[in-house]
Amino acid sequence: MSKTQLESAKAGIVTKEMVEASQGEELTPEEIRDYIANGWVVIPKNKNRSVKNVKAIGKGLRTKVNANLGTSDEKADLDFEKRKLEAAIKAGTDSVMDLSTGGDLNKAREFFLENSPVMVGAVPIYGIASEMARKGRNVEEMTEEMIFDSIEQQCLQGVDYITVHCGVTQETAARLKYAERIMPCVSRGGSITLRWMRKNKKENPLYEHFDELLKIAHKYDVTLSLGDGFRPGTVLDAIDGPQISELLILGELAKRAREKGVQVIIEGPGHVPLEHIKPHVRLEKKLCNEAPFYVLGPLPTDIAPGYDHITAAIGGAVAAAAGVDFLCYVTPAEHLGLPDEKDVYLGVMAARIAAHVGDISKGIKSAIERDRAMSVARQNLNWEEMARQALDGELLRCRAHIAQDKEACTMCGKLCAVKLSRTED
Amino acid sequence: MSKTQLESAKAGIVTKEMVEASQGEELTPEEIRDYIANGWVVIPKNKNRSVKNVKAIGKGLRTKVNANLGTSDEKADLDFEKRKLEAAIKAGTDSVMDLSTGGDLNKAREFFLENSPVMVGAVPIYGIASEMARKGRNVEEMTEEMIFDSIEQQCLQGVDYITVHCGVTQETAARLKYAERIMPCVSRGGSITLRWMRKNKKENPLYEHFDELLKIAHKYDVTLSLGDGFRPGTVLDAIDGPQISELLILGELAKRAREKGVQVIIEGPGHVPLEHIKPHVRLEKKLCNEAPFYVLGPLPTDIAPGYDHITAAIGGAVAAAAGVDFLCYVTPAEHLGLPDEKDVYLGVMAARIAAHVGDISKGIKSAIERDRAMSVARQNLNWEEMARQALDGELLRCRAHIAQDKEACTMCGKLCAVKLSRTED
Repeated sequence: MSKTQLESAKAGIVTKEMVEASQGEELTPEEIRDYIANGWVVIPKNKNRSVKNVKAIGKGLRTKVNANLGTSDEKADLDFEKRKLEAAIKAGTDSVMDLSTGGDLNKAREFFLENSPVMVGAVPIYGIASEMARKGRNVEEMTEEMIFDSIEQQCLQGVDYITVHCGVTQETAARLKYAERIMPCVSRGGSITLRWMRKNKKENPLYEHFDELLKIAHKYDVTLSLGDGFRPGTVLDAIDGPQISELLILGELAKRAREKGVQVIIEGPGHVPLEHIKPHVRLEKKLCNEAPFYVLGPLPTDIAPGYDHITAAIGGAVAAAAGVDFLCYVTPAEHLGLPDEKDVYLGVMAARIAAHVGDISKGIKSAIERDRAMSVARQNLNWEEMARQALDGELLRCRAHIAQDKEACTMCGKLCAVKLSRTED
Repeated sequence: MSKTQLESAKAGIVTKEMVEASQGEELTPEEIRDYIANGWVVIPKNKNRSVKNVKAIGKGLRTKVNANLGTSDEKADLDFEKRKLEAAIKAGTDSVMDLSTGGDLNKAREFFLENSPVMVGAVPIYGIASEMARKGRNVEEMTEEMIFDSIEQQCLQGVDYITVHCGVTQETAARLKYAERIMPCVSRGGSITLRWMRKNKKENPLYEHFDELLKIAHKYDVTLSLGDGFRPGTVLDAIDGPQISELLILGELAKRAREKGVQVIIEGPGHVPLEHIKPHVRLEKKLCNEAPFYVLGPLPTDIAPGYDHITAAIGGAVAAAAGVDFLCYVTPAEHLGLPDEKDVYLGVMAARIAAHVGDISKGIKSAIERDRAMSVARQNLNWEEMARQALDGELLRCRAHIAQDKEACTMCGKLCAVKLSRTED
């Protein structure tokens, strides 16, 4: 069996993927190799899939962005998914996750794996739970065998990384009693697992048989994204017993995964008050031996549905600046319904702004250099160059209203500060 | 002559305005009085104007939001301004500034003063500079008398607060030489002043004759918003000699203003890298004896024109959490042209999200209580209550896509985490 990226790294081998992933980054392929060996960086890429844009996630690298796509039982339409995938790619996402729960799930997964030029993640348990729901059966009727079979089948199909809620255990669940949460569980995978455990009075199979999971992940070199089933669902529930005890477990599982040559990412919140974001990121990094961190938002307030891409950009920028490596986008449709292609586009753009703001703080040189190029273009009132440097040049070209003098915009016109402060006239 | 708010506060008097401004706040009218006496809080309200919603800005109070409105020489249309004012008010702004530079400026000002239910600010020098430009004359041809006459006339008309770029002095301007900025001056008022000083080889009259300015402000109880003409125009120019030396001067002028019974706000940047925002806010607060701070953005990156409301929300939230009291909105049109009513609405909403996120961190109890109410509604899948608690309930009602079961939304449908994690079934 060929080596996983992590095994190659440990053996001192620079793989083709490490070379590809160094493109557009400030780390050399050798540095990426060493960081992967330490568990600081991952390259999510299934052995059974060829990805056009191979990317690495973690320390010293640009902050990456993921867009959640996929059908729901209320809207299962692959043409719609195609439009959303195109929007996500056009907006510059580094990754997509297929979170389909409606229609033919196998076909949807196949669609994303075939059509996405970037890494594809999935949450295997959604598939089985959706099938149960469609058959009118309860999620607790899933057998352990069904769960592992479904995971293996999705890995075989080519998924690059999978979210597995291994930290939802009897121990962490017991802490819910003391936490007095407003929203006990807002993670879909977490709530499925929790219900299964409660109804079957058993331990979470993905925790109990974690070695089994590692075998599958190792076989296909699928990166494990250790999900946070107890992530807070409101800023008021943030940073409590269930969340932190789950994080402790994820840190331990990360260690076990690395020992077996399996790459691992840790997932984080969720909803967190602004001043708790940085300390929490530092805690996660410490407890998980600097494993790459992947956060959803975080949202520093709950009261802005319809604008949650903005709220997430606030939390995401602060998180990225504090060391988060991977931002899952949040769209304007979050908390309201399934996003459409416009939501997807806006969600990716907002997450990319947050990632870039974080990259400036992280000291990623190419980030600040782009701000420099933009600012020089602004001082020169060079609109074409501004469009080239803008995150969304097309939008700039479409929205810029140039004044009659062809230099300033219609905001200031004759009283343009840039022109007034020039010393040459 | 009747006392200013500051003089009343110093004399231990609780004014009608202090009582009105305590509505919706967690400070008592007496506390507001004491904070005004210390210069920590201001109530911008011209003696010649009756404002429907009197509000205070500063320490211990909710973070307030301003929307910049007004004509430009490229678009001077009062119907357009009316629509923008309505959008700003509907979105919940606490203040508007009339930054008109096109058409009949006197009429535009009159329009805002008559129709705005919230405080109205202005930048007097725009008026005179625009008139010069319209006559085909250079801004440096303004006389000192014209400048002061125009300020007095606008104060007489009823403007509640005015931005005056008193800190653009020969001393601060000299520091430009060492700063090597990409964009020497991006403040419209600052660049007008700078050009006037350079061409006339004279000191800034608003600095040289600051006591004259204080007399006018005192007469109408107009709050002075000490503008930052040398605010950075790119994250690369942030925190340098011109900016910090201007801040030192503003702190000194704030002291002089308070001694004369004139309320004062300090204006801040601008464009600032994320990790510099908090230290800079603390520096400003220290140098200016805890005067209320009013920032434009700040924008932690320059590369996202078209999305600058999002970028500003990131910086604004971090700034508010660090102690900023007043956020000037940035619209999606920033750096592209004059905003329309949709831009205004989005700009105010984004700034209010930032203000609210900051208020949670500041410990404003009513802020977190709203998040609590929203979260309880979410756990109960009570969509009507969610709409009541949302920042934009109308948008929520219009955008929520409820699944067939009438409880969950179309994102998760049957696999709704809230439902799955309920213990009762």
